[in-house]
Amino acid sequence: MTEPLAPGAVIGILGGGQLGRMLSVAAARLGFRTHVFEPGAAPPAADVAHALTTAPYDDTEALRAFAEEVDVVTYEFENVPAEALDLIEAIRPIRPGREALAMSQDRLTEKNFLTRLGLTTAPFSAVNDADDLSLAIDQIGLPAILKTRRLGYDGKGQTRLTDPDHAEAALTTLAGAPAILEGFVAFEREVSVIGARGLDGAVACFDPGENVHADGILRTTTVPARLSAAQRSDAVLIAAQILNALDYVGVIGVELFVTEHGLVVNEFAPRVHNSGHWTQTGCVIDQFEQHVRAIAGWPLGDGTRHCDVVMENLIGDDIDLVPEIARTGAALHLYGKTEARPGRKMGHVNRITGRG
Amino acid sequence: MTEPLAPGAVIGILGGGQLGRMLSVAAARLGFRTHVFEPGAAPPAADVAHALTTAPYDDTEALRAFAEEVDVVTYEFENVPAEALDLIEAIRPIRPGREALAMSQDRLTEKNFLTRLGLTTAPFSAVNDADDLSLAIDQIGLPAILKTRRLGYDGKGQTRLTDPDHAEAALTTLAGAPAILEGFVAFEREVSVIGARGLDGAVACFDPGENVHADGILRTTTVPARLSAAQRSDAVLIAAQILNALDYVGVIGVELFVTEHGLVVNEFAPRVHNSGHWTQTGCVIDQFEQHVRAIAGWPLGDGTRHCDVVMENLIGDDIDLVPEIARTGAALHLYGKTEARPGRKMGHVNRITGRG
Repeated sequence: MTEPLAPGAVIGILGGGQLGRMLSVAAARLGFRTHVFEPGAAPPAADVAHALTTAPYDDTEALRAFAEEVDVVTYEFENVPAEALDLIEAIRPIRPGREALAMSQDRLTEKNFLTRLGLTTAPFSAVNDADDLSLAIDQIGLPAILKTRRLGYDGKGQTRLTDPDHAEAALTTLAGAPAILEGFVAFEREVSVIGARGLDGAVACFDPGENVHADGILRTTTVPARLSAAQRSDAVLIAAQILNALDYVGVIGVELFVTEHGLVVNEFAPRVHNSGHWTQTGCVIDQFEQHVRAIAGWPLGDGTRHCDVVMENLIGDDIDLVPEIARTGAALHLYGKTEARPGRKMGHVNRITGRG
Repeated sequence: MTEPLAPGAVIGILGGGQLGRMLSVAAARLGFRTHVFEPGAAPPAADVAHALTTAPYDDTEALRAFAEEVDVVTYEFENVPAEALDLIEAIRPIRPGREALAMSQDRLTEKNFLTRLGLTTAPFSAVNDADDLSLAIDQIGLPAILKTRRLGYDGKGQTRLTDPDHAEAALTTLAGAPAILEGFVAFEREVSVIGARGLDGAVACFDPGENVHADGILRTTTVPARLSAAQRSDAVLIAAQILNALDYVGVIGVELFVTEHGLVVNEFAPRVHNSGHWTQTGCVIDQFEQHVRAIAGWPLGDGTRHCDVVMENLIGDDIDLVPEIARTGAALHLYGKTEARPGRKMGHVNRITGRG
């Protein structure tokens, strides 16, 4: 399928979290229907999706039926099992494509790819056993972070290592999973670029946002980011380079460290990204619609930022602040999650801070 | 219920058209679920609603079940049968309330109400038979419009009368339905105010928009409207006066004629309004969220206009322009309707024309 999808077509979304929810709304705005595939019960996206399949990713019959009922498949998280993707891909196009997914599912593959592109990453070394780790510590130094190669999300599967004597214990927590040791980057700030690439190869990037994390979870994104004109341009060029190298279709989130020696690529996520939520308030066409446009084969939209925005995540008990926030001029986005567990993203708030 | 609804609560919507669709999206954004009640098959709102009841308005069992499953009931059109409302109201609050609905369901009642408030309307006279009509023509003059008192929408149930000899034939087309004869108003332009009133009595109005109709259907709304500061203030005060007089809760659309003698009230609709769609692009909080906030007992949002917008309806075959519009920087909103009948509202486009 290379023709643009006509309104009325069905977009399949793997994963029913808040990203799937906001993708569903954007898809509806363009006249598309969405079908969400999600193993968990009562997913946030179900409230605004046309159809929902509740089944695990190894339910081949459910996956096949899902793929046959939709026109294109996308995903809201990058850890979809490869077998599920193989099955779907034989029936319908998956966008963004498998290469981007494979890269982002494996930290080592991702970092090797970025290095091949000539981009700077944190120093890293593959760790499969205690010997590897010992060598890696010698090479990279401490403190460093030991990360599983796969399944990282919001700081899970990561151990900070400060003392070589703790190396063995750290390795034990990974239970033999292949890992990398990653050196720390002395950075001034962290920014991200939400980029998009259309089916026609056109690339458009939103303004870089400046991110603040706490406990491995994004707390705020501020636009504009404090960047020089050259840094801003570099950031966008890096995102474009990654998009083109992957023959990418859809929205990508590229996280960058700003250092005195230039920009260092932290990682990318082949999907709409928490640090792009500000676009809902700051742009006529937000990251969710941009992603839908790309995977539907539509022209990319105008992502010009028309105001300055601070996006703040509402995490866990932050949800209790909603009545107070509702009294302000801020734009509230709640995800319809009933239980406010610690660390759980319950919603976000976009505040306009200037005219852009 | 006078406590604010908590996220997770269910908002019942009578009617599943595009207004119900956009209300559903706004409700989801605040963490609410929606349950749509609609007699027709595959309504636009169903794509983004949590639940759908497909049943006619005289299905008392379905209405009762619907009312019991939701926390508050609102509607996207004003011609809900009174019996259905009676049944629902015994179970759950209906917002906006019955008085506003009764007013807007009957052109004579509405005009009498507006006159009692001291507001100016077009000259009008009740018409129940040929004698009434003859007297009305003498009093108001021709040309004039003969309108049924009830069930008017998008120019339906209206006959333009230019020749007294055609009076009898015009009356015949109404098949004995109670009617009014309405004189023409020599107006410079037509504007509308989208106002909102909270459960706490707070009133907030969006900037007036300037409307252009063709064949009785809204084509474009432009903000800002060409109004003097005094006219702008008058327009907002009129809307506020109506809202307060009706002890209204929710969003109202008030249509006004701008004449050399001041503003003349054409009619009001006790719901979100086509002429308020520009707020999706021009304001942080749009008319749909404002309505949801009001009926949920939340504080009204900030409806400040941050840019100039032209909203254009996509009617019937206009839908064929979508690929072209998608290449511009405009914000597209499609309603998911499969069949593009002449006169059918298929979507709308918001174009930013300035910085507000």
